[in-house]
Amino acid sequence: MPNSFGHLFRITTWGESHGPGIGAVIDGCPPLLPITAEEIQAELDRRRPGQSDITTPRKEADTVEILSGVYEGKTTGTPIGLFVRNTDQRSSAYSEMKQAFRPSHADFTYQSKFGVRDPNGGGRSSARETIGRVAAGAFAKKILALAYGVEIRAFVSSIHRLRMPAMEDFPTLAQVEATAVRCPDPKTAEAMIEVIKKARSEGDSVGGIIECRIRNVPVGLGEPVFDRLEADLAKAMLSLPATKGFEIGSGFGGTLLKGSEHNDLFENREGQVRTVTNRSGGVQGGISNGEEIRFNVAFKPTATILQPQQTVDLQGQPTELMGKGRHDPCVVPRAVVIVEAMAALVLLDHAMRQTAQNRAFEFPQK
Amino acid sequence: MPNSFGHLFRITTWGESHGPGIGAVIDGCPPLLPITAEEIQAELDRRRPGQSDITTPRKEADTVEILSGVYEGKTTGTPIGLFVRNTDQRSSAYSEMKQAFRPSHADFTYQSKFGVRDPNGGGRSSARETIGRVAAGAFAKKILALAYGVEIRAFVSSIHRLRMPAMEDFPTLAQVEATAVRCPDPKTAEAMIEVIKKARSEGDSVGGIIECRIRNVPVGLGEPVFDRLEADLAKAMLSLPATKGFEIGSGFGGTLLKGSEHNDLFENREGQVRTVTNRSGGVQGGISNGEEIRFNVAFKPTATILQPQQTVDLQGQPTELMGKGRHDPCVVPRAVVIVEAMAALVLLDHAMRQTAQNRAFEFPQK
Amino acid sequence: MPNSFGHLFRITTWGESHGPGIGAVIDGCPPLLPITAEEIQAELDRRRPGQSDITTPRKEADTVEILSGVYEGKTTGTPIGLFVRNTDQRSSAYSEMKQAFRPSHADFTYQSKFGVRDPNGGGRSSARETIGRVAAGAFAKKILALAYGVEIRAFVSSIHRLRMPAMEDFPTLAQVEATAVRCPDPKTAEAMIEVIKKARSEGDSVGGIIECRIRNVPVGLGEPVFDRLEADLAKAMLSLPATKGFEIGSGFGGTLLKGSEHNDLFENREGQVRTVTNRSGGVQGGISNGEEIRFNVAFKPTATILQPQQTVDLQGQPTELMGKGRHDPCVVPRAVVIVEAMAALVLLDHAMRQTAQNRAFEFPQK
Amino acid sequence: MPNSFGHLFRITTWGESHGPGIGAVIDGCPPLLPITAEEIQAELDRRRPGQSDITTPRKEADTVEILSGVYEGKTTGTPIGLFVRNTDQRSSAYSEMKQAFRPSHADFTYQSKFGVRDPNGGGRSSARETIGRVAAGAFAKKILALAYGVEIRAFVSSIHRLRMPAMEDFPTLAQVEATAVRCPDPKTAEAMIEVIKKARSEGDSVGGIIECRIRNVPVGLGEPVFDRLEADLAKAMLSLPATKGFEIGSGFGGTLLKGSEHNDLFENREGQVRTVTNRSGGVQGGISNGEEIRFNVAFKPTATILQPQQTVDLQGQPTELMGKGRHDPCVVPRAVVIVEAMAALVLLDHAMRQTAQNRAFEFPQK
Repeated sequence: MPNSFGHLFRITTWGESHGPGIGAVIDGCPPLLPITAEEIQAELDRRRPGQSDITTPRKEADTVEILSGVYEGKTTGTPIGLFVRNTDQRSSAYSEMKQAFRPSHADFTYQSKFGVRDPNGGGRSSARETIGRVAAGAFAKKILALAYGVEIRAFVSSIHRLRMPAMEDFPTLAQVEATAVRCPDPKTAEAMIEVIKKARSEGDSVGGIIECRIRNVPVGLGEPVFDRLEADLAKAMLSLPATKGFEIGSGFGGTLLKGSEHNDLFENREGQVRTVTNRSGGVQGGISNGEEIRFNVAFKPTATILQPQQTVDLQGQPTELMGKGRHDPCVVPRAVVIVEAMAALVLLDHAMRQTAQNRAFEFPQK
Repeated sequence: MPNSFGHLFRITTWGESHGPGIGAVIDGCPPLLPITAEEIQAELDRRRPGQSDITTPRKEADTVEILSGVYEGKTTGTPIGLFVRNTDQRSSAYSEMKQAFRPSHADFTYQSKFGVRDPNGGGRSSARETIGRVAAGAFAKKILALAYGVEIRAFVSSIHRLRMPAMEDFPTLAQVEATAVRCPDPKTAEAMIEVIKKARSEGDSVGGIIECRIRNVPVGLGEPVFDRLEADLAKAMLSLPATKGFEIGSGFGGTLLKGSEHNDLFENREGQVRTVTNRSGGVQGGISNGEEIRFNVAFKPTATILQPQQTVDLQGQPTELMGKGRHDPCVVPRAVVIVEAMAALVLLDHAMRQTAQNRAFEFPQK
Repeated sequence: MPNSFGHLFRITTWGESHGPGIGAVIDGCPPLLPITAEEIQAELDRRRPGQSDITTPRKEADTVEILSGVYEGKTTGTPIGLFVRNTDQRSSAYSEMKQAFRPSHADFTYQSKFGVRDPNGGGRSSARETIGRVAAGAFAKKILALAYGVEIRAFVSSIHRLRMPAMEDFPTLAQVEATAVRCPDPKTAEAMIEVIKKARSEGDSVGGIIECRIRNVPVGLGEPVFDRLEADLAKAMLSLPATKGFEIGSGFGGTLLKGSEHNDLFENREGQVRTVTNRSGGVQGGISNGEEIRFNVAFKPTATILQPQQTVDLQGQPTELMGKGRHDPCVVPRAVVIVEAMAALVLLDHAMRQTAQNRAFEFPQK
Repeated sequence: MPNSFGHLFRITTWGESHGPGIGAVIDGCPPLLPITAEEIQAELDRRRPGQSDITTPRKEADTVEILSGVYEGKTTGTPIGLFVRNTDQRSSAYSEMKQAFRPSHADFTYQSKFGVRDPNGGGRSSARETIGRVAAGAFAKKILALAYGVEIRAFVSSIHRLRMPAMEDFPTLAQVEATAVRCPDPKTAEAMIEVIKKARSEGDSVGGIIECRIRNVPVGLGEPVFDRLEADLAKAMLSLPATKGFEIGSGFGGTLLKGSEHNDLFENREGQVRTVTNRSGGVQGGISNGEEIRFNVAFKPTATILQPQQTVDLQGQPTELMGKGRHDPCVVPRAVVIVEAMAALVLLDHAMRQTAQNRAFEFPQK
């Protein structure tokens, strides 16, 4: 169903921008995982509005409550209910928007699809919905780390026309979190922050690209032919608001190479089958090969801008709309933790599927 | 499950490259659709090997049989069994590959995941599997055309470093099929064919990009928050062999624009709410807005090249492998119909979901 | 996933007996359904503890809150979050039960399956979980009533050895609700109440049978071959705590008839194809035939009894356990509304599936 | 989807009674299972028509072909295509039935649901569809036997008014297969055969009850709250043609006991937590408790009888129909292996789900 994601580690999110709050249910979480609300909160704090001077000034604590499925600090294997209450809502900011469709927002399509919509803050189409993903992703991330030592690191690699230089090393969390823009290259980060501030001062917005790298992924995750690991990652990323593209490994650039240049040769490195290069991006034939998973996600510039824009009203009449509300001039830095959460949800689900089909039974072989 | 795709119009594919054949089952096909084996065959002929002098010289008729679900020329609403018998298999070509992993193929990951694999022609990981998708896609395409007049047109927009000029008009099928490379710009097509022939003569391979455009899509298809239309399209495309990237609308290029440049303003055109530009690519908030859907898919160069390559064997020992078998120096032209099939499967599934939730009931309103 | 039910109208429940509360999420609810918390509450009040002198004396208001998906009194097509806060919990009553397995309860199996369990009130295995089903069922019931005039009427037809006489007429809600035991035959109801009171006075418990009848069901609901209507009803009913059997139409008794006695002959009644008899119970070949759907559900006697019982503790050592807590001597009367809710969920889901596949398209026929 | 069953070990069946054949696809089968077509055939031979003098005289070899997913005698983890060609079809026998609805068959409901149906032999509604279930079930049965030593034994416990005496021991396969009626009590079996022959001689039919017992089931299978083991068994059984009821453990009879009589006390038997009695039927709280699983399935008398019956035609006009074709006077003996197959599919699917969620990870505990 549309508000659920995953097969075995399955999350369902609910709630609207200006309703009582945002919820998520995790079904299928393995039991006996030690987890605290603080650990989930740490992830939520990375997507929280008002966290720095380049995000929306809205102030929401986004405090998570665990309502079920955890007993004496450990998961019980039963569904986990998570809830984050909405606190700083100003519906009045949206009164005009009730009557007209905001350009490049979901107002028109929601209205057309359902015949009705909650206009306050975009209702269900608001990016506040991703709170549930991040909260649930915290469980997945911790399980992957405990079980395999998986590390998932997303970061901002480009903002508008600024692109950070290629980084060979796996960035540390500290490097990513060092600046408000979450680009691990300090010099580029500084310039990016200026670009974002300038856009805001002009009532405009910018987009960018998030790169995600994942290491210590076990070989064998991914379920061809349809549920390839990269297919599920692509779906996960394109299910995020404002995303317009996904590429893994060599991506679109790989089309510029010949086969003899693109192929990842195999070698035996310290007793392991490894590839010499990693243009595959850690996935071959839809299945993880143990190399670092690397993918990029394109985010368009924020649709809400503080400039008058031509549009039509509910009756289809031409009108003009002036962006209001308190919005991010660039959503990309806050989306880093969301990308990580979605990646974790995909990987854990596939790890559980792999276990179920391919590790559960050992048959006697002649 | 991994070999099924779709929720309401659901296909399941089975079969290996060198087994008896390739099959597909469609579950959920609406009844009373008039359809013939010839209509399905016409689509299969577009992906058939040996169709031109830039594809593999393998000769397979790929003749489809309808084994169930169609009675007196019409679908009955019960599952449709489709089967294409394999005919031109030469397993001997694969004897070396039993012992060593072909670089950038699925040999290593299948072996690692399942502990076993059918090495002949890549077994299940062969692109022959896509036969089932194309056959099933023929049903979806016809339903969409009859029900809404939907037209799906994929074509090759770039091969290696050659990129066709932007084309404003919706390309006709005749334009696409005019050349073996399926690029509707005749001049670029000619050059692309030369590039592919040159790669083949060098025992090398090239990749490229397929652009897909879809018109007459009803407003309202797509199921936020996870099953957004673009998310399901992304998954569909990344589930195809050799794909490395997906972008919709402005895509990665859209990150270079500001919000004020990127937003699609609304206007009333001939009584319809329409967007002035289409950087959204026909989708807003995960839901179709009635504009042309436009997306690009990146295909890497074919992994099989007729050159010696370093690799390791089943025991992890270094060895060298020389590509054999009869392969495409470039898979992109034959993939055009597969992209169309997958797009059709996604759209029809969403059309049925939209009907089920949003068109089934009309409640009395005060 | 285990805590979700339905395909298109899909509910997910979460929460434990003694946690903060019980929740449910509905995904796929059609938009523009007018609904109020009061309508849901009316259903919940029929399963509420403490509603009469033959139920548990626990006092819980079980007040429902709608947390999302309803805007200005109408559903919006987005997920509906429902929450009922727990209020009257006395965990202390369960301290002994932490250490030993209650006979014929889920303590042992939960502990064995998950390696952990919330012992308070049975945690997730408590029948309080069905609150979420009843709340979600209220939506389904209303939609079915508005769309088709479907009426679902469950009632208690037997308690322990008392069985009510066959009732030809469709019982009214008033008849069912006339007595605390929810048996529409007043005389039997009176005797049943005595049986239940006697069981309670002896610290014992009794079970019984609920009959469910549904009229105005459209012809055509049910999805062979696996998702037959009766198969999904059977699953729905056996998913309820304390159920041990399900039969539809002639049921087990039908095995005593010959084909010539059992077959439902067809006739034309007022222009409709109807069956003369209804041993099929409203379903043929897994699909509703428009006749009244009739099925029975067997509920075992409540496992909790206020008598000492032999059992083993967490260490596997023999011990004795004395039932505590405030329990129903017979759960059957309170289960009536739960049976109705599950039936509504099954029917609505099938109605939406039928629409999606079989009513969405009309193809030109030669 | 309606023609698929299971979540992780998932089968999809297709094919009609009088089409080219019946197929099944297994998705999710664990790799490296040694299996031969002969082993599957042995199961199919138990449901084959013409196997004895109390079944239909139709002669079909029902020979299974494995078309994919098995390489050198072992499963590869990829989808398994199975196919049984139809051979002895006489469509002419059904020409009258094209025009009129057979009483208590699926003709009317299929026609109403889909607006079309294949009338030959009932098309998709024919019990020939269960061939796919039995073939797929053979894989599940073998995996369960190899992995856990699970034994599934179904048998005929009643035919019409004849009921075999309670049998304490677990019946052997030889005992079940000793007679054509598959009742392990020889004396009752003899009488049952006479009842069936008499029904046939009168052009009539009889029904009966199949009991199924399963031992060596691991503790912990079943996924509350909705996918309880008994709920999925109930669905599996009610998805079979001609079934009208399901009960587990004490079943409907259990409603006649008090809690103090019904509860299964726990004891420590040879170091294991066991129940003294087994009124639960091997399942508590929706999860297997390691005791023998016991359930009953009610089959109505065969709808096809060789007597004239009142019905209506496609235009709704009254008419009379005389049963033709070669049918079983009693389907119950041939259904024994089908019940076993469905039970195996349910158990294996749950075993894989249990592994995925509850056995995949071991977290460090303080």
